Amino acid sequence: MRIPYNYALYLVTDSELCPRENLFSQVERALQGGVTMVQLREKDLGSLAFYQTALKMKSLTDRYHVPLIINDRLDIALAVDAAGVHVGQSDLPAAVVRRLMGPEKLVGVSASTVAEAVIAYNDGADYLGVGAVFPTSTKKDAVNIKDSIAMLTAIHAAVPIPMVGIGGISEKNIDKLYGTDIDGVAVVSALMCAKDPRAAAERLLACTNSL
Amino acid sequence: MRIPYNYALYLVTDSELCPRENLFSQVERALQGGVTMVQLREKDLGSLAFYQTALKMKSLTDRYHVPLIINDRLDIALAVDAAGVHVGQSDLPAAVVRRLMGPEKLVGVSASTVAEAVIAYNDGADYLGVGAVFPTSTKKDAVNIKDSIAMLTAIHAAVPIPMVGIGGISEKNIDKLYGTDIDGVAVVSALMCAKDPRAAAERLLACTNSL
Repeated sequence: MRIPYNYALYLVTDSELCPRENLFSQVERALQGGVTMVQLREKDLGSLAFYQTALKMKSLTDRYHVPLIINDRLDIALAVDAAGVHVGQSDLPAAVVRRLMGPEKLVGVSASTVAEAVIAYNDGADYLGVGAVFPTSTKKDAVNIKDSIAMLTAIHAAVPIPMVGIGGISEKNIDKLYGTDIDGVAVVSALMCAKDPRAAAERLLACTNSL
Repeated sequence: MRIPYNYALYLVTDSELCPRENLFSQVERALQGGVTMVQLREKDLGSLAFYQTALKMKSLTDRYHVPLIINDRLDIALAVDAAGVHVGQSDLPAAVVRRLMGPEKLVGVSASTVAEAVIAYNDGADYLGVGAVFPTSTKKDAVNIKDSIAMLTAIHAAVPIPMVGIGGISEKNIDKLYGTDIDGVAVVSALMCAKDPRAAAERLLACTNSL
């Protein structure tokens, strides 16, 4: 049987948003605050540097008994025996990822429409990252929270797998997602840019009880 | 038993040197001229686009019964069931690649010193790409052909696996490599930028008999 994963507070370590020299200390303090899952997202590293970063991150997340997910790069995930891979719509198709990762590893897929969510589910995704829920520093397009909630609700109705909201979620706006019945929130800057990531994680985690 | 690979004329499809719109026609004409191995090298494509390009390249090389090697991205190699992976010194370590690819797939490693060659061999590499033998359009540093031949000879003496020379090799200079006892030449622009890649491949292949 697959371990029941806890998606409540899912940290994504986008190196574009956080100086890499602080990466491990920032993640560790967030883990101390209760982060339940970590996704390593590196878009600019060569394969060797990504592998070395992932190895180090794996030993950190292992110490906190938190699963490590690798963004996009299935080879890096296999190389460090990560818990799984998260792919976007421009990455390897989820069906290919599932075939290569085997049935035991976690496969996550980014979806922003019901159609994408249904394909991901049929392709064997274990969970979905749905968003952007709010405007983000990288995607500043006006996002209407009513539309976001409608999207979360429609996807939740269409597919039976766990779902985390992603995109600009912070302590200031997470209450807008209360009652949406999502399984957790994926955050980047709310923790990676926090001055006190431990305290920020503790407060966010407490909020996830009301989702 | 492993298929005995023919390294004589090893085409590397560097998309920085050849417009991608001509990629498949250029490679197909080179295959018609006798290319014995193809390495797909894509440094700027996202994973989905790389996968789709690799799938298409695999169906092309399969038609000519020529093995397809993927540069760097082990996940793409697995996804399209390529014959193997070629890694440089900034990619995944050869030992990791060997472990993940299994014993049957081909693992190639770029080496430019005896030390790198010995490590690659000990890590399970099947063959080496050694260079740069001549100055290239991307690496214009003065390369002395006497030093290159000394390097090829030293590496050949140190490790017992096949070796191809790479870096600026063309019809105009391949004769400098005659008698070095290398197993083949890897070429990029000599075929990817050729006006008549079929004829260029035929001439280069004939030259490889004198290596």
